[in-house]
Amino acid sequence: MRYKITIEYDGTNILGWQRQLDGPSVQEYLENAVLSLVPHSSSSRIEVQGAGRTDAGVHALAQVAHFDLEREIEDWKLRDAINFHLRDQNAPVVVTLVEAVSSDFNARFSAKGRGYIYRILNRRAPSALEKNRVWWVPVELNITKMQEAAKHLLGYHDFSSFRAAACQAKSPLKTLDKIEIYQQGEEIIFEVEAKSFLHHQVRNIVGTLKLVGDGHLQPSDIKKILEAKDRKVAGPTAPASGLYLSKVWY
Amino acid sequence: MRYKITIEYDGTNILGWQRQLDGPSVQEYLENAVLSLVPHSSSSRIEVQGAGRTDAGVHALAQVAHFDLEREIEDWKLRDAINFHLRDQNAPVVVTLVEAVSSDFNARFSAKGRGYIYRILNRRAPSALEKNRVWWVPVELNITKMQEAAKHLLGYHDFSSFRAAACQAKSPLKTLDKIEIYQQGEEIIFEVEAKSFLHHQVRNIVGTLKLVGDGHLQPSDIKKILEAKDRKVAGPTAPASGLYLSKVWY
Repeated sequence: MRYKITIEYDGTNILGWQRQLDGPSVQEYLENAVLSLVPHSSSSRIEVQGAGRTDAGVHALAQVAHFDLEREIEDWKLRDAINFHLRDQNAPVVVTLVEAVSSDFNARFSAKGRGYIYRILNRRAPSALEKNRVWWVPVELNITKMQEAAKHLLGYHDFSSFRAAACQAKSPLKTLDKIEIYQQGEEIIFEVEAKSFLHHQVRNIVGTLKLVGDGHLQPSDIKKILEAKDRKVAGPTAPASGLYLSKVWY
Repeated sequence: MRYKITIEYDGTNILGWQRQLDGPSVQEYLENAVLSLVPHSSSSRIEVQGAGRTDAGVHALAQVAHFDLEREIEDWKLRDAINFHLRDQNAPVVVTLVEAVSSDFNARFSAKGRGYIYRILNRRAPSALEKNRVWWVPVELNITKMQEAAKHLLGYHDFSSFRAAACQAKSPLKTLDKIEIYQQGEEIIFEVEAKSFLHHQVRNIVGTLKLVGDGHLQPSDIKKILEAKDRKVAGPTAPASGLYLSKVWY
């Protein structure tokens, strides 16, 4: 039986999605939890495959993953059982939904698209309640200019200027389907969607658009930066704390 | 010079508003921060007086307090300086606003009213991202019934049934000016307002209304509980983690 799970996590104190030798990861917490449901002799490891990797400090509202179990368990019972074993590990990870799926479903390769949210807290005072949940930017940002700049990024482009050096994608060519920027109270929210993203692509886009917002760049500079196909000409990578994997669709 | 400050804090790891001998409090963090701005010989303690005490684990979006300084400092400079010294203490406390006020302003006694927000996360899965920020209630709550029940609490009543044993108020008679309950995503939000509250009044109200929401009580039972004037007949105190002091007005 193959199961699709939807996962929420607080990335603050973990090394990211992928299992690592030197610290806790979402994958490890989940694999340990699912393994606790399996008779000991039958398996020494369950593989939980995610729709996408997230870096250390990045959060998820709705990451998706899949795994196989020999036992057939009702969806809600499986969700509650995994959450029990996650809490047992004191993991900052929760399964919000379990769905039985056909064996050809693959969380990563079947995904039609992914959505991220990025939150900037734009006020003079830092945050007490949303620390590690936002990027605190104390200087006032011009949303209209950031919106104008963002239009240059929509569609099919070579995103080399917004790609991490460590990116393992075969090609820097990606299609950005959506980038919306709006005010919500004292926060500025970025919503982005694409079939898939390059490593650090969202954080590099936000870090560069912030330079438009604070006046260091003009909206039209974003077009030049894109055309330069050179990571060095774009802005810095925005902090992980503001980024949320918000949805994956199939 | 008297200054009025508006304060945001994460109550999770502090003992509450009031200075205590056995652990950190919002008042102590603030008094230490303000004292850092004063020449050493002139004072050994600055008193920061809050509009109301909050218990351990209770948060604030906009607590208000006042203190006196001999120096006159521009509002924004004072805010940034206090926040600098709060961060220095790694305090989960931030000053969002500083206003110079006349010397007869008193954060506690001049207050015309106080508002609280209570957040229940109402879903089967616990929260990874909002842990310590909500009360997680996994059983489905009926909002309409809780709204109907809440109407009995509006207005001037003897709130003895919702009053903590340790409450120091002279009288259990209070006027509840507002109690609104609504859904927001997976959360149920309670908004309450009054000139002042008894100790644990909001948490005892929410803890009792939750018993209406899950079917243990009928809306009309709330009227009987109120009339009994007996803490033992009402429901349990809702956890501190869901409560936010959200405004104080003058």
